[in-house]
Amino acid sequence: MPKRIAVVEKILSANDRQAHENQVRLDSARLWAINLMASPGAGKTSLIERTVKGLAGKMRIGMINGDIATTLDADRGREAGATSVNINTGGNCHLDAMMVAGALEQLELTSLDLLIIENVGNLVCPADFKLGTHLNALVASIPEGDDKPYKYPGMYRGVQAVVINKIDLLPYVPFRMQYFKTGIEVLNPGVRQFEVSCQSGVGLTEWLDWLEKQVLQYRQNLKDK
Amino acid sequence: MPKRIAVVEKILSANDRQAHENQVRLDSARLWAINLMASPGAGKTSLIERTVKGLAGKMRIGMINGDIATTLDADRGREAGATSVNINTGGNCHLDAMMVAGALEQLELTSLDLLIIENVGNLVCPADFKLGTHLNALVASIPEGDDKPYKYPGMYRGVQAVVINKIDLLPYVPFRMQYFKTGIEVLNPGVRQFEVSCQSGVGLTEWLDWLEKQVLQYRQNLKDK
Repeated sequence: MPKRIAVVEKILSANDRQAHENQVRLDSARLWAINLMASPGAGKTSLIERTVKGLAGKMRIGMINGDIATTLDADRGREAGATSVNINTGGNCHLDAMMVAGALEQLELTSLDLLIIENVGNLVCPADFKLGTHLNALVASIPEGDDKPYKYPGMYRGVQAVVINKIDLLPYVPFRMQYFKTGIEVLNPGVRQFEVSCQSGVGLTEWLDWLEKQVLQYRQNLKDK
Repeated sequence: MPKRIAVVEKILSANDRQAHENQVRLDSARLWAINLMASPGAGKTSLIERTVKGLAGKMRIGMINGDIATTLDADRGREAGATSVNINTGGNCHLDAMMVAGALEQLELTSLDLLIIENVGNLVCPADFKLGTHLNALVASIPEGDDKPYKYPGMYRGVQAVVINKIDLLPYVPFRMQYFKTGIEVLNPGVRQFEVSCQSGVGLTEWLDWLEKQVLQYRQNLKDK
Protein backbone atom coordinates (compact mmCIF):
# COMPACT_ATOMS: atom_id res chain seq x y z
CA MET A 1 0.00 0.00 0.00
CA PRO A 2 2.39 2.76 -1.16
CA LYS A 3 -0.27 5.45 -0.67
CA ARG A 4 -0.62 4.70 3.01
CA ILE A 5 3.13 4.74 3.55
CA ALA A 6 3.39 8.10 1.79
CA VAL A 7 0.79 9.64 4.12
CA VAL A 8 2.47 8.31 7.24
CA GLU A 9 5.87 9.54 6.07
CA LYS A 10 4.43 12.97 5.39
CA ILE A 11 2.92 13.16 8.90
CA LEU A 12 6.19 12.09 10.51
CA SER A 13 8.32 14.51 8.54
CA ALA A 14 5.93 17.40 9.31
CA ASN A 15 6.25 16.36 12.95
CA ASP A 16 10.06 16.31 12.69
CA ARG A 17 10.09 19.85 11.32
CA GLN A 18 7.90 21.09 14.17
CA ALA A 19 10.05 19.20 16.69
CA HIS A 20 13.10 21.01 15.34
CA GLU A 21 11.30 24.35 15.70
CA ASN A 22 10.37 23.45 19.27
CA GLN A 23 13.99 22.77 20.10
CA VAL A 24 15.13 26.05 18.54
CA ARG A 25 12.54 27.80 20.69
CA LEU A 26 13.68 26.01 23.86
CA ASP A 27 17.33 26.79 23.09
CA SER A 28 16.61 30.48 22.65
CA ALA A 29 15.19 30.38 26.19
CA ARG A 30 18.15 28.24 27.38
CA LEU A 31 15.63 25.69 28.60
CA TRP A 32 16.57 21.99 28.68
CA ALA A 33 13.65 19.63 28.15
CA ILE A 34 13.07 15.93 28.72
CA ASN A 35 10.37 13.69 27.20
CA LEU A 36 9.26 11.09 29.76
CA MET A 37 7.56 8.01 28.35
CA ALA A 38 6.19 4.80 29.93
CA SER A 39 3.30 2.38 29.95
CA PRO A 40 0.24 3.30 32.01
CA GLY A 41 1.01 3.15 35.70
CA ALA A 42 4.79 2.70 35.51
CA GLY A 43 5.24 5.81 37.64
CA LYS A 44 5.90 8.81 35.37
CA THR A 45 3.85 11.15 37.54
CA SER A 46 5.33 9.82 40.78
CA LEU A 47 8.84 10.31 39.38
CA ILE A 48 7.96 13.87 38.37
CA GLU A 49 6.57 14.60 41.85
CA ARG A 50 9.78 13.27 43.41
CA THR A 51 11.89 15.24 40.94
CA VAL A 52 10.06 18.53 41.48
CA LYS A 53 10.32 18.18 45.26
CA GLY A 54 13.92 16.91 45.11
CA LEU A 55 15.12 19.84 43.00
CA ALA A 56 13.06 22.48 44.81
CA GLY A 57 15.15 25.59 45.43
CA LYS A 58 17.72 24.46 42.86
CA MET A 59 15.67 24.43 39.68
CA ARG A 60 12.49 26.10 38.50
CA ILE A 61 10.60 23.29 36.82
CA GLY A 62 7.90 23.44 34.18
CA MET A 63 5.72 20.54 33.13
CA ILE A 64 3.65 19.62 30.12
CA ASN A 65 1.32 16.69 30.77
CA GLY A 66 -0.27 14.69 28.02
CA ASP A 67 -3.43 12.91 29.09
CA ILE A 68 -6.19 11.28 27.11
CA ALA A 69 -8.73 12.60 29.58
CA THR A 70 -8.68 14.41 32.96
CA THR A 71 -6.00 16.70 34.40
CA LEU A 72 -5.05 14.31 37.23
CA ASP A 73 -1.33 14.20 36.42
CA ALA A 74 -1.00 17.94 35.84
CA ASP A 75 -2.73 18.50 39.19
CA ARG A 76 -0.23 16.25 40.96
CA GLY A 77 2.71 18.07 39.37
CA ARG A 78 1.27 21.44 40.30
CA GLU A 79 0.75 20.34 43.89
CA ALA A 80 4.40 19.27 43.98
CA GLY A 81 5.39 22.81 42.97
CA ALA A 82 5.83 22.85 39.19
CA THR A 83 4.35 25.23 36.66
CA SER A 84 2.14 23.00 34.60
CA VAL A 85 0.27 22.95 31.31
CA ASN A 86 -2.12 20.15 30.51
CA ILE A 87 -2.59 18.73 27.01
CA ASN A 88 -5.78 16.75 26.81
CA THR A 89 -5.22 14.67 23.67
CA GLY A 90 -8.91 13.83 23.34
CA GLY A 91 -8.26 10.14 22.92
CA ASN A 92 -5.02 10.43 20.98
CA CYS A 93 -2.45 7.85 22.06
CA HIS A 94 0.70 10.00 22.00
CA LEU A 95 1.91 13.58 22.10
CA ASP A 96 3.19 15.12 18.90
CA ALA A 97 5.37 18.15 18.24
CA MET A 98 2.37 20.31 17.25
CA MET A 99 0.64 19.74 20.59
CA VAL A 100 3.86 20.56 22.42
CA ALA A 101 4.31 23.76 20.38
CA GLY A 102 0.88 24.87 21.57
CA ALA A 103 1.76 24.11 25.18
CA LEU A 104 5.07 25.99 24.93
CA GLU A 105 3.04 29.11 24.05
CA GLN A 106 1.43 28.91 27.47
CA LEU A 107 4.65 28.75 29.49
CA GLU A 108 7.05 31.56 30.30
CA LEU A 109 10.05 29.62 29.08
CA THR A 110 12.78 31.99 30.21
CA SER A 111 11.56 31.73 33.81
CA LEU A 112 12.26 27.98 33.87
CA ASP A 113 15.39 25.85 34.26
CA LEU A 114 14.01 22.44 33.39
CA LEU A 115 10.99 21.34 31.36
CA ILE A 116 9.55 17.88 31.86
CA ILE A 117 7.11 16.60 29.24
CA GLU A 118 5.01 13.69 30.45
CA ASN A 119 3.85 11.71 27.45
CA VAL A 120 0.66 9.64 27.22
CA GLY A 121 0.95 6.26 29.00
CA ASN A 122 1.77 3.98 26.07
CA LEU A 123 4.79 1.80 25.23
CA VAL A 124 4.19 1.89 21.49
CA CYS A 125 3.12 5.06 19.72
CA PRO A 126 5.03 7.84 21.58
CA ALA A 127 8.35 6.37 20.37
CA ASP A 128 7.56 7.46 16.80
CA PHE A 129 7.01 11.15 17.49
CA LYS A 130 9.88 13.51 18.28
CA LEU A 131 8.79 16.45 20.42
CA GLY A 132 11.87 18.66 20.25
CA THR A 133 13.17 17.72 23.70
CA HIS A 134 16.90 17.35 24.39
CA LEU A 135 16.50 13.88 25.86
CA ASN A 136 14.04 10.98 25.77
CA ALA A 137 13.68 8.83 28.87
CA LEU A 138 11.65 5.74 29.65
CA VAL A 139 10.20 4.84 33.02
CA ALA A 140 10.08 1.05 33.28
CA SER A 141 8.47 -0.73 36.19
CA ILE A 142 9.29 -4.01 37.95
CA PRO A 143 5.70 -5.41 38.08
CA GLU A 144 5.37 -4.92 34.30
CA GLY A 145 7.67 -7.91 33.87
CA ASP A 146 11.19 -8.55 32.64
CA ASP A 147 10.24 -9.25 29.01
CA LYS A 148 9.30 -5.68 28.10
CA PRO A 149 12.50 -4.66 26.24
CA TYR A 150 12.08 -7.70 24.00
CA LYS A 151 8.40 -6.99 23.34
CA TYR A 152 8.57 -3.19 22.90
CA PRO A 153 11.93 -2.72 21.15
CA GLY A 154 11.00 0.60 19.49
CA MET A 155 10.55 2.29 22.82
CA TYR A 156 13.67 0.84 24.43
CA ARG A 157 15.76 1.72 21.39
CA GLY A 158 14.69 5.35 21.20
CA VAL A 159 15.68 6.62 24.64
CA GLN A 160 18.84 7.93 26.26
CA ALA A 161 17.91 6.94 29.80
CA VAL A 162 15.85 4.18 31.46
CA VAL A 163 14.52 4.68 34.98
CA ILE A 164 13.63 1.28 36.45
CA ASN A 165 10.94 2.11 39.01
CA LYS A 166 9.22 0.15 41.81
CA ILE A 167 12.33 -1.85 42.75
CA ASP A 168 10.77 -2.14 46.24
CA LEU A 169 8.41 -4.72 44.66
CA LEU A 170 11.27 -7.02 43.56
CA PRO A 171 10.72 -9.48 46.45
CA TYR A 172 7.06 -9.97 45.52
CA VAL A 173 7.11 -10.50 41.76
CA PRO A 174 8.94 -12.83 39.38
CA PHE A 175 11.46 -10.53 37.71
CA ARG A 176 14.87 -11.55 36.40
CA MET A 177 16.91 -8.34 36.48
CA GLN A 178 19.71 -9.84 34.40
CA TYR A 179 17.34 -10.96 31.63
CA PHE A 180 15.70 -7.53 31.62
CA LYS A 181 19.02 -5.68 31.47
CA THR A 182 20.37 -7.94 28.74
CA GLY A 183 17.33 -6.96 26.67
CA ILE A 184 18.06 -3.28 27.19
CA GLU A 185 21.77 -3.70 26.42
CA VAL A 186 21.10 -5.51 23.15
CA LEU A 187 18.73 -2.81 21.91
CA ASN A 188 20.47 0.22 23.34
CA PRO A 189 24.07 -0.48 24.35
CA GLY A 190 25.39 1.71 27.14
CA VAL A 191 22.12 3.56 27.76
CA ARG A 192 22.06 5.27 31.17
CA GLN A 193 20.06 3.25 33.70
CA PHE A 194 18.69 4.07 37.15
CA GLU A 195 17.10 1.72 39.67
CA VAL A 196 14.66 3.60 41.89
CA SER A 197 11.54 3.35 43.99
CA CYS A 198 9.37 6.47 43.95
CA GLN A 199 7.49 4.86 46.84
CA SER A 200 10.44 4.35 49.22
CA GLY A 201 12.76 6.95 47.70
CA VAL A 202 15.62 4.53 47.03
CA GLY A 203 17.93 5.48 44.15
CA LEU A 204 16.43 8.90 43.54
CA THR A 205 19.51 10.91 44.56
CA GLU A 206 21.49 9.44 41.68
CA TRP A 207 18.69 10.31 39.24
CA LEU A 208 18.33 13.87 40.57
CA ASP A 209 22.10 14.50 40.48
CA TRP A 210 22.30 13.23 36.93
CA LEU A 211 19.33 15.34 35.80
CA GLU A 212 20.81 18.46 37.35
CA LYS A 213 24.13 17.74 35.66
CA GLN A 214 22.39 17.45 32.26
CA VAL A 215 20.89 20.91 32.67
CA LEU A 216 24.16 22.50 33.81
CA GLN A 217 26.16 20.84 31.04
CA TYR A 218 23.61 21.98 28.45
CA ARG A 219 23.93 25.58 29.59
CA GLN A 220 27.70 25.34 29.55
CA ASN A 221 27.57 24.04 25.99
CA LEU A 222 25.32 26.92 24.91
CA LYS A 223 27.75 29.40 26.46
CA ASP A 224 30.74 27.79 24.75
CA LYS A 225 29.12 28.14 21.30
CA MET B 1 -9.47 19.00 9.41
CA PRO B 2 -12.51 17.36 7.77
CA LYS B 3 -10.32 15.33 5.37
CA ARG B 4 -8.49 13.59 8.19
CA ILE B 5 -11.73 12.73 9.97
CA ALA B 6 -13.15 11.26 6.76
CA VAL B 7 -10.14 8.96 6.35
CA VAL B 8 -10.30 7.75 9.97
CA GLU B 9 -14.04 7.07 9.69
CA LYS B 10 -13.47 5.11 6.50
CA ILE B 11 -10.80 2.96 8.17
CA LEU B 12 -13.03 2.28 11.17
CA SER B 13 -16.10 1.37 9.11
CA ALA B 14 -14.03 -0.96 6.91
CA ASN B 15 -12.77 -2.52 10.13
CA ASP B 16 -16.34 -2.88 11.44
CA ARG B 17 -17.41 -4.70 8.28
CA GLN B 18 -14.49 -7.11 8.58
CA ALA B 19 -15.23 -7.60 12.30
CA HIS B 20 -18.79 -8.55 11.41
CA GLU B 21 -17.50 -11.06 8.85
CA ASN B 22 -15.14 -12.52 11.46
CA GLN B 23 -18.04 -13.05 13.83
CA VAL B 24 -20.16 -14.71 11.14
CA ARG B 25 -17.24 -17.03 10.48
CA LEU B 26 -16.81 -17.84 14.19
CA ASP B 27 -20.55 -18.46 14.57
CA SER B 28 -20.59 -20.87 11.66
CA ALA B 29 -17.94 -22.85 13.57
CA ARG B 30 -19.87 -22.43 16.85
CA LEU B 31 -16.73 -20.88 18.34
CA TRP B 32 -17.03 -18.26 21.08
CA ALA B 33 -14.20 -15.70 21.12
CA ILE B 34 -12.92 -13.17 23.63
CA ASN B 35 -10.69 -10.13 22.97
CA LEU B 36 -8.32 -9.62 25.92
CA MET B 37 -6.86 -6.13 26.28
CA ALA B 38 -4.54 -4.50 28.85
CA SER B 39 -1.54 -2.26 29.28
CA PRO B 40 1.90 -3.82 28.92
CA GLY B 41 2.62 -6.16 31.80
CA ALA B 42 -0.83 -6.25 33.41
CA GLY B 43 -0.87 -10.02 33.03
CA LYS B 44 -2.79 -10.96 29.86
CA THR B 45 -0.43 -13.81 29.05
CA SER B 46 -0.36 -15.08 32.64
CA LEU B 47 -4.16 -15.06 32.72
CA ILE B 48 -4.26 -16.99 29.46
CA GLU B 49 -1.77 -19.56 30.80
CA ARG B 50 -3.90 -20.00 33.92
CA THR B 51 -7.07 -20.23 31.81
CA VAL B 52 -5.68 -22.81 29.39
CA LYS B 53 -4.43 -24.98 32.26
CA GLY B 54 -7.58 -24.42 34.33
CA LEU B 55 -9.92 -25.51 31.52
CA ALA B 56 -7.72 -28.37 30.29
CA GLY B 57 -9.86 -31.43 29.54
CA LYS B 58 -13.01 -29.30 29.49
CA MET B 59 -12.37 -26.96 26.57
CA ARG B 60 -10.15 -27.03 23.52
CA ILE B 61 -8.65 -23.55 23.45
CA GLY B 62 -7.22 -21.60 20.55
CA MET B 63 -5.20 -18.42 20.85
CA ILE B 64 -4.33 -15.52 18.60
CA ASN B 65 -1.52 -13.37 20.01
CA GLY B 66 -0.83 -9.87 18.84
CA ASP B 67 2.71 -8.73 19.46
CA ILE B 68 4.73 -5.84 18.10
CA ALA B 69 7.79 -8.04 17.97
CA THR B 70 8.75 -11.55 19.10
CA THR B 71 6.54 -14.61 19.66
CA LEU B 72 7.10 -14.73 23.44
CA ASP B 73 3.40 -14.66 24.38
CA ALA B 74 2.33 -17.18 21.77
CA ASP B 75 5.11 -19.50 22.98
CA ARG B 76 3.82 -19.28 26.56
CA GLY B 77 0.26 -20.06 25.46
CA ARG B 78 1.45 -23.00 23.39
CA GLU B 79 3.45 -24.38 26.30
CA ALA B 80 0.31 -24.16 28.45
CA GLY B 81 -1.48 -26.34 25.91
CA ALA B 82 -3.34 -24.03 23.52
CA THR B 83 -3.28 -24.04 19.73
CA SER B 84 -1.74 -20.70 18.92
CA VAL B 85 -1.28 -18.31 16.01
CA ASN B 86 1.02 -15.33 16.34
CA ILE B 87 0.31 -11.97 14.70
CA ASN B 88 3.43 -9.89 14.57
CA THR B 89 2.03 -6.39 14.01
CA GLY B 90 5.40 -5.01 12.90
CA GLY B 91 5.17 -2.01 15.21
CA ASN B 92 1.42 -1.48 14.96
CA CYS B 93 -0.12 -0.57 18.31
CA HIS B 94 -3.31 -2.62 18.13
CA LEU B 95 -4.91 -5.57 16.38
CA ASP B 96 -7.52 -4.92 13.75
CA ALA B 97 -10.22 -7.12 12.21
CA MET B 98 -8.18 -7.69 9.03
CA MET B 99 -5.23 -9.12 10.98
CA VAL B 100 -7.59 -11.37 12.93
CA ALA B 101 -9.25 -12.57 9.70
CA GLY B 102 -5.82 -13.67 8.47
CA ALA B 103 -5.14 -15.51 11.72
CA LEU B 104 -8.53 -17.26 11.63
CA GLU B 105 -7.48 -18.80 8.29
CA GLN B 106 -4.66 -20.58 10.09
CA LEU B 107 -6.81 -22.22 12.79
CA GLU B 108 -9.09 -25.20 12.47
CA LEU B 109 -12.02 -23.37 14.03
CA THR B 110 -14.43 -26.29 14.31
CA SER B 111 -11.92 -28.20 16.44
CA LEU B 112 -11.97 -25.48 19.12
CA ASP B 113 -14.39 -24.55 21.93
CA LEU B 114 -12.95 -21.22 23.00
CA LEU B 115 -10.80 -18.67 21.17
CA ILE B 116 -8.78 -16.14 23.14
CA ILE B 117 -7.36 -13.17 21.25
CA GLU B 118 -4.56 -11.43 23.12
CA ASN B 119 -4.37 -7.84 21.90
CA VAL B 120 -1.24 -5.65 21.85
CA GLY B 121 -0.34 -4.26 25.29
CA ASN B 122 -1.85 -0.79 25.10
CA LEU B 123 -4.62 0.96 27.07
CA VAL B 124 -5.52 3.36 24.27
CA CYS B 125 -5.69 2.22 20.66
CA PRO B 126 -7.12 -1.35 20.86
CA ALA B 127 -10.40 0.06 22.25
CA ASP B 128 -11.20 1.61 18.86
CA PHE B 129 -10.97 -1.56 16.79
CA LYS B 130 -13.61 -4.27 16.91
CA LEU B 131 -12.24 -7.70 16.07
CA GLY B 132 -15.45 -9.69 15.74
CA THR B 133 -15.19 -11.38 19.14
CA HIS B 134 -18.26 -12.06 21.28
CA LEU B 135 -16.84 -10.30 24.30
CA ASN B 136 -14.20 -7.69 25.14
CA ALA B 137 -12.37 -7.97 28.44
CA LEU B 138 -9.77 -5.82 30.15
CA VAL B 139 -7.02 -7.07 32.44
CA ALA B 140 -6.27 -4.33 34.97
CA SER B 141 -3.42 -4.60 37.44
CA ILE B 142 -3.02 -3.35 41.01
CA PRO B 143 0.51 -1.84 40.63
CA GLU B 144 -0.70 0.23 37.64
CA GLY B 145 -2.54 2.43 40.13
CA ASP B 146 -6.13 3.20 41.06
CA ASP B 147 -6.55 6.16 38.69
CA LYS B 148 -6.54 4.17 35.46
CA PRO B 149 -10.34 4.12 34.79
CA TYR B 150 -10.37 7.92 35.07
CA LYS B 151 -7.38 8.31 32.75
CA TYR B 152 -8.24 5.69 30.12
CA PRO B 153 -12.05 5.95 29.92
CA GLY B 154 -12.33 4.63 26.35
CA MET B 155 -10.88 1.28 27.34
CA TYR B 156 -12.90 0.92 30.54
CA ARG B 157 -16.09 1.87 28.72
CA GLY B 158 -15.72 -0.60 25.87
CA VAL B 159 -15.48 -3.90 27.76
CA GLN B 160 -17.95 -6.38 29.23
CA ALA B 161 -15.59 -7.73 31.90
CA VAL B 162 -12.69 -6.39 33.97
CA VAL B 163 -10.20 -8.81 35.51
CA ILE B 164 -8.32 -7.03 38.31
CA ASN B 165 -5.02 -8.90 38.48
CA LYS B 166 -2.09 -8.94 40.95
CA ILE B 167 -4.28 -8.46 44.03
CA ASP B 168 -1.49 -10.23 45.97
CA LEU B 169 0.43 -6.94 45.65
CA LEU B 170 -2.28 -4.91 47.45
CA PRO B 171 -0.33 -4.79 50.76
CA TYR B 172 2.74 -3.29 49.05
CA VAL B 173 1.36 -0.51 46.87
CA PRO B 174 -0.89 2.51 47.45
CA PHE B 175 -4.16 1.45 45.83
CA ARG B 176 -7.64 2.55 46.92
CA MET B 177 -9.92 -0.23 45.69
CA GLN B 178 -13.07 1.82 46.32
CA TYR B 179 -11.79 4.77 44.26
CA PHE B 180 -10.79 2.41 41.45
CA LYS B 181 -14.16 0.64 41.43
CA THR B 182 -16.09 3.88 41.56
CA GLY B 183 -14.25 4.89 38.38
CA ILE B 184 -15.25 1.67 36.67
CA GLU B 185 -18.88 1.94 37.83
CA VAL B 186 -19.23 5.50 36.52
CA LEU B 187 -17.94 4.55 33.08
CA ASN B 188 -19.43 1.11 32.77
CA PRO B 189 -22.23 0.46 35.27
CA GLY B 190 -22.68 -3.15 36.26
CA VAL B 191 -19.72 -4.47 34.27
CA ARG B 192 -18.62 -7.93 35.44
CA GLN B 193 -15.53 -7.72 37.67
CA PHE B 194 -13.09 -10.31 38.94
CA GLU B 195 -10.33 -9.93 41.52
CA VAL B 196 -7.54 -12.39 40.88
CA SER B 197 -3.86 -13.10 41.26
CA CYS B 198 -2.34 -15.12 38.44
CA GLN B 199 0.71 -15.45 40.68
CA SER B 200 -1.00 -17.01 43.73
CA GLY B 201 -4.07 -18.36 41.93
CA VAL B 202 -6.58 -16.51 44.13
CA GLY B 203 -9.94 -15.73 42.49
CA LEU B 204 -9.30 -17.73 39.32
CA THR B 205 -12.02 -20.33 39.92
CA GLU B 206 -14.71 -17.67 39.66
CA TRP B 207 -13.21 -16.41 36.39
CA LEU B 208 -12.90 -19.90 34.90
CA ASP B 209 -16.47 -20.85 35.88
CA TRP B 210 -17.82 -17.66 34.38
CA LEU B 211 -15.85 -18.13 31.14
CA GLU B 212 -17.07 -21.69 30.77
CA LYS B 213 -20.63 -20.54 31.35
CA GLN B 214 -20.30 -17.92 28.60
CA VAL B 215 -19.29 -20.59 26.10
CA LEU B 216 -22.08 -22.99 27.10
CA GLN B 217 -24.71 -20.25 27.06
CA TYR B 218 -23.53 -19.11 23.61
CA ARG B 219 -23.92 -22.63 22.23
CA GLN B 220 -27.34 -22.97 23.79
CA ASN B 221 -28.40 -19.70 22.18
CA LEU B 222 -27.19 -20.87 18.77
CA LYS B 223 -29.18 -24.07 19.17
CA ASP B 224 -32.33 -22.20 20.19
CA LYS B 225 -32.21 -20.02 17.08
